Amino acid sequence: MSSDTVNPRVDPELTPGFDPAFALHRGGKMSVTATVPVRDADDLSLAYTPGVARVCEAIAERPELVHEYTWRSQVVAVVTDGSAVLGLGDIGPEASLPVMEGKAILFKQFGGVDAVPVALDCRDTDDIVETVARLAPSFGGVNLEDISAPRCFEIERRLQERLDIPVFHDDQHGTAVVTLAALMGASRLTGRDMTGLRVVISGAGAAGVAIAKILLGARVRDVVVCDRRGVVSDDREDLTDVKRQLARITNPDGVTGSLADALKGADVFVGVSGGTVPESAVATMAPGAFVFAMANPNPEIHPEVAHRYASVVATGRSDFPNQINNVLAFPGIFAGALSVRATRITESMKLAAAKALADVVADELSPSRIIPSPFDERVAPAVSAAVAEAARAACVARKP
Amino acid sequence: MSSDTVNPRVDPELTPGFDPAFALHRGGKMSVTATVPVRDADDLSLAYTPGVARVCEAIAERPELVHEYTWRSQVVAVVTDGSAVLGLGDIGPEASLPVMEGKAILFKQFGGVDAVPVALDCRDTDDIVETVARLAPSFGGVNLEDISAPRCFEIERRLQERLDIPVFHDDQHGTAVVTLAALMGASRLTGRDMTGLRVVISGAGAAGVAIAKILLGARVRDVVVCDRRGVVSDDREDLTDVKRQLARITNPDGVTGSLADALKGADVFVGVSGGTVPESAVATMAPGAFVFAMANPNPEIHPEVAHRYASVVATGRSDFPNQINNVLAFPGIFAGALSVRATRITESMKLAAAKALADVVADELSPSRIIPSPFDERVAPAVSAAVAEAARAACVARKP
Repeated sequence: MSSDTVNPRVDPELTPGFDPAFALHRGGKMSVTATVPVRDADDLSLAYTPGVARVCEAIAERPELVHEYTWRSQVVAVVTDGSAVLGLGDIGPEASLPVMEGKAILFKQFGGVDAVPVALDCRDTDDIVETVARLAPSFGGVNLEDISAPRCFEIERRLQERLDIPVFHDDQHGTAVVTLAALMGASRLTGRDMTGLRVVISGAGAAGVAIAKILLGARVRDVVVCDRRGVVSDDREDLTDVKRQLARITNPDGVTGSLADALKGADVFVGVSGGTVPESAVATMAPGAFVFAMANPNPEIHPEVAHRYASVVATGRSDFPNQINNVLAFPGIFAGALSVRATRITESMKLAAAKALADVVADELSPSRIIPSPFDERVAPAVSAAVAEAARAACVARKP
Repeated sequence: MSSDTVNPRVDPELTPGFDPAFALHRGGKMSVTATVPVRDADDLSLAYTPGVARVCEAIAERPELVHEYTWRSQVVAVVTDGSAVLGLGDIGPEASLPVMEGKAILFKQFGGVDAVPVALDCRDTDDIVETVARLAPSFGGVNLEDISAPRCFEIERRLQERLDIPVFHDDQHGTAVVTLAALMGASRLTGRDMTGLRVVISGAGAAGVAIAKILLGARVRDVVVCDRRGVVSDDREDLTDVKRQLARITNPDGVTGSLADALKGADVFVGVSGGTVPESAVATMAPGAFVFAMANPNPEIHPEVAHRYASVVATGRSDFPNQINNVLAFPGIFAGALSVRATRITESMKLAAAKALADVVADELSPSRIIPSPFDERVAPAVSAAVAEAARAACVARKP
């Protein structure tokens, strides 16, 4: 076939400037494997009829045995509606599948947890809650992913109220855990008391709200959240329920105005907005500030520029130091929760995960190493063990 | 620990007369595997952000690419509500999971098809239809399993009307395809014209109804179906909608009465009732009859007894010759349907599957070999190729 007969619309792999991401994705990124032999009639008589019937009967009589004799307690549903996918926004369930498959293989690679992409063709909050609840008997946990705010808050809350397995919206809590770990690392490195820092969060979506809450849970007293219209404060009339609640628990000094107003004298900038922050605003922060510019792929301010004013800079990107990457958290968190058959993931379990993550690099801290690399093999076991212990302490573990 | 401190209720593996099925099932029978490397930041940048975003965008723009660049077109949801599991009946979704996992690994082992157990915590027909329809973007096909009649008929019909991926209730069609193949084999072996045989089916549930329909589709003219109350005939007042329709299309000679009445002079007995049939009734069948006593684990009549009257005997069990086992059909049927991205599984595709299955042993026929063994490696490729070709012929293939 001569090159001028190739229609690049037919196959992205044939486009000029061939993109290796397409070659890698061909046929998907995952498969299912049998972990028991099915070679002959004897194997079949144990793994399938008639042997399987005895296992089914035992579970029917004693439902807790489902965790021993099926894969349920090692498999997580990665559930999305495709409404807020990465930086792409609302691309729908089918187009979100490559991300969900990616998540699934990260679960496996980093946490040893099996995961199955479940991209839902529905948008209504009630429908999503009902659908996931109906699926729950097949899974040991639910990782909600890329569901837009504010629906994600209610969906997670209602599902967790209804189900006795962990329900975890990673865009919220995964990001929050790793951000807290980074703040712990930066504080330790610079000898600061984290609880006394003034933190400004740009972005009041899923990640921003969860970061604010976990920081408050970690006793950081002064947290200010900004959305596109400025500081989320009590005096605003345009707040959603979630933001109104946020205004009540944050901003103790009653700051008002724009993000630039909030940054004046602030110790920490946490960017999860996808927007930008001008150098002039960063320049007004307190001396020795921490800048976590986590927007992907374009940080709110370029790390090199941020370094002119900040003592520690982190981003969401792998090509700069201090990548705040959820993969540091979710595999270990679920591995730990599943290992003790936790019924939920409590605030104390998230705090324990952040502390364990920060502790991994406690003896190796430097301005370019406030958190571990995603490929640091110590991470998932440390997070998993801490989460399991915290689950026991919180009395949400069903297995000692 | 002394043996008298062991509580056998705690662990079936500790019970006297240790059952190897429990040891095999510990931790489940399947896992998820990444098929692409995730060893370093470069890998992650292709399989996850930022590379994955380009694949998502391509699918958002051209939805059909989901079949190329995700695992969707190679993965089947094995969906149940746990209402009619094996011979166990209504044991609920959790207790059905070992069967669904078994099914999933058979899909993989015999058809190379990935499959995921989806046991639903709902019973209402509308709810099941709606739930499975919402899940559909994640899967290339839906295998309905162990859902009780008559709901299974409506659920399958409505889902197939709504979705553009194959929806296949294996308890119906898998059983029907293998039964038809066995009848083809027995007819060839004995030089009979299959279409002229008088067939009596005992059981008017999912399997019985589907067997009757596929036999009629294969031009067998005289099919009589019996339920627990006897022949399903026009004059009965107690018939469900499904059975009323069955009465209209079967029983051309207007037979009435009991199963024993129907068997007088019949050429073929097909048992899918779970009940028994007395030797005295089998003795009244026509000379050289075929007896397919498929109830599991106890055939409707013992094969040795049946052989006193029948020229060919088949059962559902692996320890007698001629096992009529669905695993001969469903892996190849889905492999073939998925290979051409069929939008549904038509009657012609099922007939093609049965014929391909029968053809595998066409040159090896004997009274103890009217169908292939489940472990015959020729089966799935033959069935898959035939189904793919039939899908193209039926214009339901989206891929040449």
